[in-house]
Amino acid sequence: MFEIYEKLIEARLNEILSNKECEYSHLIEAMAYSAEAGGKRIRPKLLMEFMRVAGGQPENALNFACALEMIHTYSLIHDDLPCMDDDDMRRGRPSCHIKFGEATALLAGDALLTDAFKIALSTENVPFERVCKAAKVLSECAGSDGMIGGQIIDLKYEEQKAPLTVVLDLYRLKTGALLKAAATIGCILAGANDEIINASCVFAEKIGLAFQIRDDILDIISTAEELGKPIGSDAESEKSTYVSLVGLDKAQEDVVSFTNEAINALEAFSADTTELKAFALKLIERRN
Amino acid sequence: MFEIYEKLIEARLNEILSNKECEYSHLIEAMAYSAEAGGKRIRPKLLMEFMRVAGGQPENALNFACALEMIHTYSLIHDDLPCMDDDDMRRGRPSCHIKFGEATALLAGDALLTDAFKIALSTENVPFERVCKAAKVLSECAGSDGMIGGQIIDLKYEEQKAPLTVVLDLYRLKTGALLKAAATIGCILAGANDEIINASCVFAEKIGLAFQIRDDILDIISTAEELGKPIGSDAESEKSTYVSLVGLDKAQEDVVSFTNEAINALEAFSADTTELKAFALKLIERRN
Repeated sequence: MFEIYEKLIEARLNEILSNKECEYSHLIEAMAYSAEAGGKRIRPKLLMEFMRVAGGQPENALNFACALEMIHTYSLIHDDLPCMDDDDMRRGRPSCHIKFGEATALLAGDALLTDAFKIALSTENVPFERVCKAAKVLSECAGSDGMIGGQIIDLKYEEQKAPLTVVLDLYRLKTGALLKAAATIGCILAGANDEIINASCVFAEKIGLAFQIRDDILDIISTAEELGKPIGSDAESEKSTYVSLVGLDKAQEDVVSFTNEAINALEAFSADTTELKAFALKLIERRN
Repeated sequence: MFEIYEKLIEARLNEILSNKECEYSHLIEAMAYSAEAGGKRIRPKLLMEFMRVAGGQPENALNFACALEMIHTYSLIHDDLPCMDDDDMRRGRPSCHIKFGEATALLAGDALLTDAFKIALSTENVPFERVCKAAKVLSECAGSDGMIGGQIIDLKYEEQKAPLTVVLDLYRLKTGALLKAAATIGCILAGANDEIINASCVFAEKIGLAFQIRDDILDIISTAEELGKPIGSDAESEKSTYVSLVGLDKAQEDVVSFTNEAINALEAFSADTTELKAFALKLIERRN
């Protein structure tokens, strides 16, 4: 899905993170190592597709797409650090701090986050007003009232029960915020009106919830082999999840209804949204 | 010096980092704790003064000034972490990770950096083109080719001799880059031409070098009481500094000549630059 975008994204990321002779070349190496580590590139692809369905040229959103992926990558590097989740492996390879040491990993994360804005703000062929607005949305969705707020809630309720409203807030922020960035930034760069931007927000929020609840379900019904990581980890840690709070059956129903709500939101677009619908439906089916 | 700016900066930072009822309020608390911890606000004051001498309204640069201070603050939080300098104290108080724990400190740093761009991009009464350009300079100066590159070089030569060219690069990046951001962003927001922007760059680079070499000198000639931290730490660690490489006398001469070069660069401005000159001269005299 979105194969054309994928090629553009990989090529541009390689260009951004290509190394050069300098005293800090291992910093760039660490940044590139984590950015190239086989992610699905969901967020940048969504961003470019929303640029298209909102009437813009997807290639003009390429810098923002890469910036968003750089921010996603930095969040994984910092999440893996010993003081956070302390994960030695990421996508089947040593995580950044295992490979490059903690200090370099910390700074590689900081640099991916910082450089993301440089790349986003290098956008050409789009009016400055839209670039400013889109870059502001990027920082809002990634910052204290977005993804980072979600990470803090996650830490807070690691070992205590959370009510359903908190679990939903956590999902909206920790996973949802960068998806919302993808959808709305695409629309903003295309010059879409508020109705379209809001519709893209609804789509992103609903697939974010469906995605995260599907994750909870897979943690229970999947095999470790299929999932590529240990199963049952949520139940073991007594962490509150959507499934632990509403039960497996209701959770499975809700994944379907959130996905349908996401698909319905696409009605606001006059362009062909077949691929976005297929993308949303694929999330329900996924086994890992 | 720059007292009017100081009041505006403190008030706006308080506003930005004021707490609210939410599940992640201790994140905001940690951000505010580090941001309010009695810094001299050198960078934001310089930024606002360069906005003025380049012909703009300093108040319209207030958001960028605060964004720059937020980035400086995040860099101190991350620098103090155990995997970096492992400093328990900062400006006479427990450092952020001692007070709030490592995970929260890491995320508070990330959030200050991310939110800085939100604040900068909320600038009003300045054309979008200038806001875009200034925000891009902010990320360039703070990112891999700026401050973070400098931090990596610093780590690399912590326990091995560095040649003079590397020490100068380190100073230019680690300390100089955010000073350069202050000077050039002020000029860019004011709509200054390239000649003026370049002159502000020269000023920032030279005072950055003078500042850093003065630091090295104080590490040798000062008393611990005056400096507020242990003296002789550079000599003990056999770290290469400008002083260890060129000798104390030459270093003292060079602080004066870099400062003079900085002051000469101000000739490009038609506005009154008395305060900037006084600021540069004060750096030579300082005892801590």
